[in-house]
Amino acid sequence: MLQFQCDYTEGCHPRILEALQHTNMEQTPGYGMDSYCARARERILAECGLVEGDVHFLVGGTQTNTIVIKSILRPHQGVIATEAGHIATHETGSIEATGHKVLTLPTEDGTLCAQRVEALCREHFESPIAEHMVQPGMVYISWPTECGTLYSKAQLQALRRVCDTYGLPLYLDGARMGYGLGSPRCDLTLKDIAELCDVFYLGGTKCGALFGEALVIKKESLKKDFRYYIKQHGALLAKGRLLGIQFDTLFSDGLYYKICAKAVSQALSLREAFLAHGIEMWRDSPTNLQFPILTRAQMDRLTEWGYMFEESHPYGDGRFVTRFCISWATTDEALQSLIRDIGRLGV
Amino acid sequence: MLQFQCDYTEGCHPRILEALQHTNMEQTPGYGMDSYCARARERILAECGLVEGDVHFLVGGTQTNTIVIKSILRPHQGVIATEAGHIATHETGSIEATGHKVLTLPTEDGTLCAQRVEALCREHFESPIAEHMVQPGMVYISWPTECGTLYSKAQLQALRRVCDTYGLPLYLDGARMGYGLGSPRCDLTLKDIAELCDVFYLGGTKCGALFGEALVIKKESLKKDFRYYIKQHGALLAKGRLLGIQFDTLFSDGLYYKICAKAVSQALSLREAFLAHGIEMWRDSPTNLQFPILTRAQMDRLTEWGYMFEESHPYGDGRFVTRFCISWATTDEALQSLIRDIGRLGV
Amino acid sequence: MLQFQCDYTEGCHPRILEALQHTNMEQTPGYGMDSYCARARERILAECGLVEGDVHFLVGGTQTNTIVIKSILRPHQGVIATEAGHIATHETGSIEATGHKVLTLPTEDGTLCAQRVEALCREHFESPIAEHMVQPGMVYISWPTECGTLYSKAQLQALRRVCDTYGLPLYLDGARMGYGLGSPRCDLTLKDIAELCDVFYLGGTKCGALFGEALVIKKESLKKDFRYYIKQHGALLAKGRLLGIQFDTLFSDGLYYKICAKAVSQALSLREAFLAHGIEMWRDSPTNLQFPILTRAQMDRLTEWGYMFEESHPYGDGRFVTRFCISWATTDEALQSLIRDIGRLGV
Amino acid sequence: MLQFQCDYTEGCHPRILEALQHTNMEQTPGYGMDSYCARARERILAECGLVEGDVHFLVGGTQTNTIVIKSILRPHQGVIATEAGHIATHETGSIEATGHKVLTLPTEDGTLCAQRVEALCREHFESPIAEHMVQPGMVYISWPTECGTLYSKAQLQALRRVCDTYGLPLYLDGARMGYGLGSPRCDLTLKDIAELCDVFYLGGTKCGALFGEALVIKKESLKKDFRYYIKQHGALLAKGRLLGIQFDTLFSDGLYYKICAKAVSQALSLREAFLAHGIEMWRDSPTNLQFPILTRAQMDRLTEWGYMFEESHPYGDGRFVTRFCISWATTDEALQSLIRDIGRLGV
Repeated sequence: MLQFQCDYTEGCHPRILEALQHTNMEQTPGYGMDSYCARARERILAECGLVEGDVHFLVGGTQTNTIVIKSILRPHQGVIATEAGHIATHETGSIEATGHKVLTLPTEDGTLCAQRVEALCREHFESPIAEHMVQPGMVYISWPTECGTLYSKAQLQALRRVCDTYGLPLYLDGARMGYGLGSPRCDLTLKDIAELCDVFYLGGTKCGALFGEALVIKKESLKKDFRYYIKQHGALLAKGRLLGIQFDTLFSDGLYYKICAKAVSQALSLREAFLAHGIEMWRDSPTNLQFPILTRAQMDRLTEWGYMFEESHPYGDGRFVTRFCISWATTDEALQSLIRDIGRLGV
Repeated sequence: MLQFQCDYTEGCHPRILEALQHTNMEQTPGYGMDSYCARARERILAECGLVEGDVHFLVGGTQTNTIVIKSILRPHQGVIATEAGHIATHETGSIEATGHKVLTLPTEDGTLCAQRVEALCREHFESPIAEHMVQPGMVYISWPTECGTLYSKAQLQALRRVCDTYGLPLYLDGARMGYGLGSPRCDLTLKDIAELCDVFYLGGTKCGALFGEALVIKKESLKKDFRYYIKQHGALLAKGRLLGIQFDTLFSDGLYYKICAKAVSQALSLREAFLAHGIEMWRDSPTNLQFPILTRAQMDRLTEWGYMFEESHPYGDGRFVTRFCISWATTDEALQSLIRDIGRLGV
Repeated sequence: MLQFQCDYTEGCHPRILEALQHTNMEQTPGYGMDSYCARARERILAECGLVEGDVHFLVGGTQTNTIVIKSILRPHQGVIATEAGHIATHETGSIEATGHKVLTLPTEDGTLCAQRVEALCREHFESPIAEHMVQPGMVYISWPTECGTLYSKAQLQALRRVCDTYGLPLYLDGARMGYGLGSPRCDLTLKDIAELCDVFYLGGTKCGALFGEALVIKKESLKKDFRYYIKQHGALLAKGRLLGIQFDTLFSDGLYYKICAKAVSQALSLREAFLAHGIEMWRDSPTNLQFPILTRAQMDRLTEWGYMFEESHPYGDGRFVTRFCISWATTDEALQSLIRDIGRLGV
Repeated sequence: MLQFQCDYTEGCHPRILEALQHTNMEQTPGYGMDSYCARARERILAECGLVEGDVHFLVGGTQTNTIVIKSILRPHQGVIATEAGHIATHETGSIEATGHKVLTLPTEDGTLCAQRVEALCREHFESPIAEHMVQPGMVYISWPTECGTLYSKAQLQALRRVCDTYGLPLYLDGARMGYGLGSPRCDLTLKDIAELCDVFYLGGTKCGALFGEALVIKKESLKKDFRYYIKQHGALLAKGRLLGIQFDTLFSDGLYYKICAKAVSQALSLREAFLAHGIEMWRDSPTNLQFPILTRAQMDRLTEWGYMFEESHPYGDGRFVTRFCISWATTDEALQSLIRDIGRLGV
């Protein structure tokens, strides 16, 4: 079987395992107070062009989203996101479990539209019965989005302006950030993101680590007591150095960027192969997720030939939107095999 | 420096790293649906003498406690624990954050007294204004306790009887379970624990793993939809196999038992050394945590000589209760060095 | 000024004040354990044709919705409602504040469509990643709806069937129940509602009381410990008899039905007046809420003439959807005055 | 029967019923935006000597406590109270239900000791593992306390100083405030309380109203968006004027003070009667609650003679602590009857 269903089918980049091996019997303080975490923090701040940000290492994405959002909102506030946002769909109501509504807005390609955010805020704050409705308290976006698409710099700047108008912190979920930065169609740098967002994270789990997300809090007022929130949520890893060692490795010699850029390049080859075979793509994704629209027969054939991928949802005309993930771990052999087989996929 | 302040200063047992290395580039499904998790589940059930229990792998102890307790209680219920219980003191109010009160009872040695539980239940359920008070909904104990002490089989049976009388699930936090089972004063087996408790976990983080706790749900009615709770809390590890591989390794060839028993044996030597030097112990702990009562001068000397340990709290007569942890990773050299230096510690 | 903006601009039906006056200095036990509450419970059960239901008296609608929903759902579950449902729009996220998502479905006229509920449940329960999504745990409907419309008996039966298929309790918010039962287009009796729903409430606040809602819990498994939930939410009125006396009065001599039916009759006259003047209605409401679509000029004129009403939202063509409420307290004089003025409203 | 078991066995002061009658068919806007609420707010601020405080009217005490505390605390914070504090004992875990721990301290007479608060804060904020513990976020006191006792001005000033040191808002639960202000042993005025506290409420339910508590928020930073919290909790009374009318009446012509002072005077006579008969009092209460320690025979005799009172808890020597409440509604006849019967109570 060759698995393309998600970007966490393998362990981690070999250099990370080497580093864990190398440091295994060293004694360090717990809870992220060790020197590896310290060094990883410095590296990440430098990459972001930040002098004073706080960096916290967490284990996974849902956990990170939950803690960040809970830490920012007041009890009567909600977080604005798209209807397709991960927090609105596939986190089992984790945000609601902390007491907050996800205020969803429609989306065509996975991105959140600044005008829609503005309209929602205006409607709320100008209402004579505003207090009967959930108050917008922050904005959540994912980059790349769940559809593999990217916000342009202009789009992100537009969101920033609306956030400034209404005093809303802007939070960017970068579970697949490496694959965004590694896309040829990306016009944002990590420094741009750090400049335009108040809080964001650089995903490790899907980008070469065993697990781990590096959260950066730039806005001063959001930093206070953040470690309490982590601990309260049961997310303060006892052996915190495991996260420090991994991010220290990923941000040495540009490893994070290199392995993700290679995966995006592979994904774009895959995309070309589908298109060349006359298969439409659901979204125009320039990153590591590709969404070919397949017939049932095509899906069955690929499965029969040993490929695993995700069946996302019916397209509405008898075909199905599917999802193929390429990751840092995808081998050229696996990719070439799939591309060859697409060539003989039929209809 | 030689660190004795906690039982997570090192990485993991070398055999675990080997297993991670060996399996690193294999492709597996995510979220604990892989064959390593399956095998680890089987091994653990076999060790517990259970045929039908559910086993879930989680990352850490606070996380596990929070999810288990939230999954069991109804909104108006609380969990009974000792005043010293980890959930009552050092988890930043994680239980309250899910909406539930920790109903605390006094303790002398860290164990929860069955009679006190019974009295609290009787008081509650017989009150004419019961509905103005939090209803007892389950019982939490840790084994070994936060004081290093162990419930005897008779004590655990007594708690079981009270739980049965009032219909309360009994949950055992086994963060240091290996060190309990490895104590010469332990009269319980893992099978006994599985028989007497409804839910319990076997700690990995403190007992040889990089991280991870293996939760066993025996009681049928508590099993339903448990994976939803895990996911909602952001605790469903994407690369779940990391947990499966670790527990599979720990429960092969009795590794878990062996490494913990050795640590307990070392801890008891350390205890003897303190006593031989005329230093009193705060609690009579037969496990890997030892609590010598030291003078400020003794503490300063040990620190000066390069030993790190925890200063727990003032004893009340000018001396201080300290905590020394021995773990699976403690070397005989480090231990002998400490024992030698205790011999010249003075007063 | 003549106020038509909501159905709680006056105090209460005079017979209620008389009863309060009459009983004022009697001594009774607190928290709803008095004889007036007991008698009101009996009356309500008799009206519902129930022998074994539990009746609880609460102060307001949002409070009632919050407590009921919290008492039914498990932490990973959500409540299904329409996008227009009061709990989804105008209760400041009170459901989310208790940890639960409102799973919203589109609606054309304010009613929840059984087929849509079924599709949502099927999608959820058949998903391979169900545990990453909020599990449907109950169904919420309002009757009359927020649009003044009514479910027919057939519609309610269809919802009941879907609820049975998926094991979901069906909860009916009857804040304006009197105005539904009093509509000539209503084909449901209170006994039908009691037969088809698991939990429901009869609104007092909008139907003649100073305040108060009478909650009926029919389903056995939902009754347990309900008074704990009321108290925990701070909703157990110390002088609970105030609620008992009010509902005892409302359900003596059919007062509740009579005063509401009269209001509906007045509302339908108002509706005729709007239609006769060529003014369209936003929804075809057969109850006490009427939604004429007015021009800005018409709104300004009515305001100038001393009428207060609610401006709901823009209709999209320059006109506005407005809301006029008739209640048990609306006098014929006020109504005739408004009807006369509609006749000279112009365009 | 003559009921002395609590201070809410009757309806309300007749002048309140008159006012409700008088205003019943007036039309007013909902949700507390009416002129009666406005006038009541002004009267209360004037009594408190405040120019800029916010006044909100709520229905009951548990509700008020829950909303206030939730509005102030951040998720990782708890509220400091005595072990006997109402929020810690008899509100069914309502504070925990909003996610917060009640950090309890021992008490001898029901009052919270400033030194103990300081010690707890010092211990927390100086701990190297502070983030593993709940952070103190505010202080809750009741005045009079649950034991009927009063803080002196000096005690309240001492608490204020500790609160200032640690930046903790001080909240005073004044469910029985009238009975405190009406005590001959009270050395505090309402203006003193307003000066020393950040938030407090004047109880109506137990002091002459049908229901209702008047919450005063003095501290500027705690005012923001408070109506959202009220609405979210389902506590924004639709016919808010009912609260306004009641407090407007209570604070006209000093009615609130007069009726409470009379009750305290009666309570002190009752106290004298018990003492004269050689019956000890559990606490030295100068307010409307009195706690005689009775034998079972004495309790039985009083019950047999038609008196109802609360059996609080065993005193430990075979006798029982009981509670007798005097209220604004207690008649001199009832009191004299009880006093006479105490005289023949025996042992």
